[in-house]
Amino acid sequence: MTPFLHRELPEPLYSQLYHWIKKEIEEGRLLPGMKMPSIRQLTAHLKVSRNTVEAAYQQLQSEGYLESVPKSGIWVAEIEKSPLHPNEVEHPIKLECKPSSEVLVDFEYGNVDLEKFPLKQWKKCLSDAVDQENNWLFKYSEKQGEFALRREISNHLLQSRGVRSAPEQILITAGTQTSMALICRLLALQGHTVAMEEPGYSGVRSVFEDERCHVEPMPLEKDGLSVEHIQTSRAKAVYVTPSHQFPFGMVLSISKRMRLLKWAYQSEGYIIEDDYDGEFRYRGQPIPSLKSLDEEERVIYLGTFSKSFLPSVRLSYIVFPPSLMGQYLRKFAAYNQSVSPIIQRAMALFMQSGEFERHIRRMRKLYQRKHQALLRSIEQHMGTKVKVVGEKSGLHILLKLKGVSTLELIEKGLQKGVKVYSPLSFWLNPTPEGHSYIMLGFGGLSIEEIEKGISLLASCLHEEEIGES
Amino acid sequence: MTPFLHRELPEPLYSQLYHWIKKEIEEGRLLPGMKMPSIRQLTAHLKVSRNTVEAAYQQLQSEGYLESVPKSGIWVAEIEKSPLHPNEVEHPIKLECKPSSEVLVDFEYGNVDLEKFPLKQWKKCLSDAVDQENNWLFKYSEKQGEFALRREISNHLLQSRGVRSAPEQILITAGTQTSMALICRLLALQGHTVAMEEPGYSGVRSVFEDERCHVEPMPLEKDGLSVEHIQTSRAKAVYVTPSHQFPFGMVLSISKRMRLLKWAYQSEGYIIEDDYDGEFRYRGQPIPSLKSLDEEERVIYLGTFSKSFLPSVRLSYIVFPPSLMGQYLRKFAAYNQSVSPIIQRAMALFMQSGEFERHIRRMRKLYQRKHQALLRSIEQHMGTKVKVVGEKSGLHILLKLKGVSTLELIEKGLQKGVKVYSPLSFWLNPTPEGHSYIMLGFGGLSIEEIEKGISLLASCLHEEEIGES
Repeated sequence: MTPFLHRELPEPLYSQLYHWIKKEIEEGRLLPGMKMPSIRQLTAHLKVSRNTVEAAYQQLQSEGYLESVPKSGIWVAEIEKSPLHPNEVEHPIKLECKPSSEVLVDFEYGNVDLEKFPLKQWKKCLSDAVDQENNWLFKYSEKQGEFALRREISNHLLQSRGVRSAPEQILITAGTQTSMALICRLLALQGHTVAMEEPGYSGVRSVFEDERCHVEPMPLEKDGLSVEHIQTSRAKAVYVTPSHQFPFGMVLSISKRMRLLKWAYQSEGYIIEDDYDGEFRYRGQPIPSLKSLDEEERVIYLGTFSKSFLPSVRLSYIVFPPSLMGQYLRKFAAYNQSVSPIIQRAMALFMQSGEFERHIRRMRKLYQRKHQALLRSIEQHMGTKVKVVGEKSGLHILLKLKGVSTLELIEKGLQKGVKVYSPLSFWLNPTPEGHSYIMLGFGGLSIEEIEKGISLLASCLHEEEIGES
Repeated sequence: MTPFLHRELPEPLYSQLYHWIKKEIEEGRLLPGMKMPSIRQLTAHLKVSRNTVEAAYQQLQSEGYLESVPKSGIWVAEIEKSPLHPNEVEHPIKLECKPSSEVLVDFEYGNVDLEKFPLKQWKKCLSDAVDQENNWLFKYSEKQGEFALRREISNHLLQSRGVRSAPEQILITAGTQTSMALICRLLALQGHTVAMEEPGYSGVRSVFEDERCHVEPMPLEKDGLSVEHIQTSRAKAVYVTPSHQFPFGMVLSISKRMRLLKWAYQSEGYIIEDDYDGEFRYRGQPIPSLKSLDEEERVIYLGTFSKSFLPSVRLSYIVFPPSLMGQYLRKFAAYNQSVSPIIQRAMALFMQSGEFERHIRRMRKLYQRKHQALLRSIEQHMGTKVKVVGEKSGLHILLKLKGVSTLELIEKGLQKGVKVYSPLSFWLNPTPEGHSYIMLGFGGLSIEEIEKGISLLASCLHEEEIGES
């Protein structure tokens, strides 16, 4: 970080520094998730006053370029498009984009495979949906979501996840966060304690916090979250990812499942089961969902099409116990459904035609091959320098690093064109241990890209060793 | 209301009554919005105990079939599809539907015209959107919404509503209620006073209430809401529909606009301008939006495609002052965009091609003709028996009734196959005056249907007269 600051210019130094950093971020030389030098460090490095650096940092924070994380430091913010400098402009205007050649392989989590996607069939469903007897196009849609889609989801859940749910129990939503906000309100969780895995999905934690819940982190054990901790907590609800813990990847053991259900029955608490990637399990027996074991209607099941189909459909759903569904319809009678029925009906047609089940079977095989390639590459190139965490399902793994910190590896990786991510934000209270993982999402990468990415990343580890020796 | 109750059956009387009413609702003989007899009335009528009626009503309320409105009575609930008896099932199962032949003309508000809708072009845009260089399909989308759509909205607003807004100030949302919930959180309105017109859009009032705002109703005057009342309130924000007051239809006068802005500047309050149907004005000069007059960034502008395009796209937007947009991006950095980018990109293509502006021009002419037909029919068939309220724009009008109550007319209309609605729910504190209006939405009706509907409705008024004489 060496900006040229000109003391002879009329522009104050802090403003020069501010503009320089802003440009570095906008032009992609400083990337989101990178740590900035501390105020003290930068003051010393640039030989300017502390005020100069503070003022520049403050301005950048207030504009959203930088983010200060308590007890952690100052980071380049995650906002993909800067509010003042859009870099996703299509024709006719073509602004300069962040050069993408810089990143050769991006292990971003959340992307899905695009090569084998049945684009033609999906387009046909979109078109057929609009062609259906189409009075519905010109009206507001069913509050709970289109019945045809709920019926298909109900069938799918029974077949693939063992969940018995009438279409009348299903609510269509525009994503897991929307689902969680509704659930918080329905269960009146405001001001109450809710439990979630530590680490766990931060997107849901943000919702809990915004809904003014008191989030109590439940430590993870080898077979999933600590049920003892829940039993001694005052939690009114617990959010869990039992099929594939996010981000650690373990499966909640059957004995813990039974104990968790028992806790819910006895305390009249609710279990919110997020089965975000339950479709993609590569080894061992499929695990029955918590919902399928629930005998007293204490499990609220969350599903999504983001992993099994496309993130861009923005389509999720909640399976409520019948009594809660009734409560929802009364309490939220004034609210319109927020997912376009065009998308909902297209998805229903896609499922009705059998395309969806075929797609999942195809993707399961494909992701399994990618997953194997990833594990093989890691073993081959990294050997004992890392440990793979959570290896039986889903679209991501964690690597536990030895002798190198997450941030070092992220920076070194970027220099070689490999983008990897820290799972640190998934901790409510980050521990030193949290700094020793990286997260690798592989859904959107080809096998070649996976192999190349791991080999490049491994070379960073080797350098590290040489550097140390 | 004469159910047959059998005292000799083992089924308790309350249960027989419950099942009978439920069936009447499910089979469409009791319609949403109809008032049920009071417990006292029904007790007397059926010669059963008060407990019997109370128990049946309670059960029906808890299942969502009936709704008790304080100080008003018990009503058949508005839930279109009963949670336990879906009546919108498509192939292969075909359940019995509420016979639609019963309702010949439905003056429901919110529907749009389907005859002249450019279905072919819209389908092409959906298909072209998916065909675009489609990496985006496989990722989560831009948090603020697709840039291409925000750019088109920015152009449209400048041309049609005089609003200057950079795409960077625009946030795409899944409907006005979603927009309002976000705004409440962004402005930290919880626990604070917010003002809105009385009567006003109840969908937004529900959001304010759910966000625990204290809603202060602002009385309406001939030229819009009373600015004095706002000045003496402690409101931190006011929600207004200045172009076409909902539901009364008046335009907020220019002098009140200036005073309202002044209030916002001085009190550092915010004005939330909902321009829900600003595109459809039939007489007089177009009125500049409040946002276009705002010199100190105190107006938050809400727009929607529900009226100008299709309710089923579920696509709305907020134009924020730049500083609030920055705050939004920081405060809600953890939240994903909830509208599918497929819909967003299709809409952007539709706008880019010029189809959207053409569609609006076509619709404005068409709605104007419908509107004229409506006014003409009312004058011809109803003459001085009613007074038309709010007649210069939009897709609905109110009728002020004389000598007949809203509920009487609704019931009589239904008997003749005409469905009209009470605007009573738009009042926070319903006045006796509120009981003397009906609301007629005409967007989705043909001119023939409008004429037929009004003539049938008029015949109810005449009967009324005969009945009275």
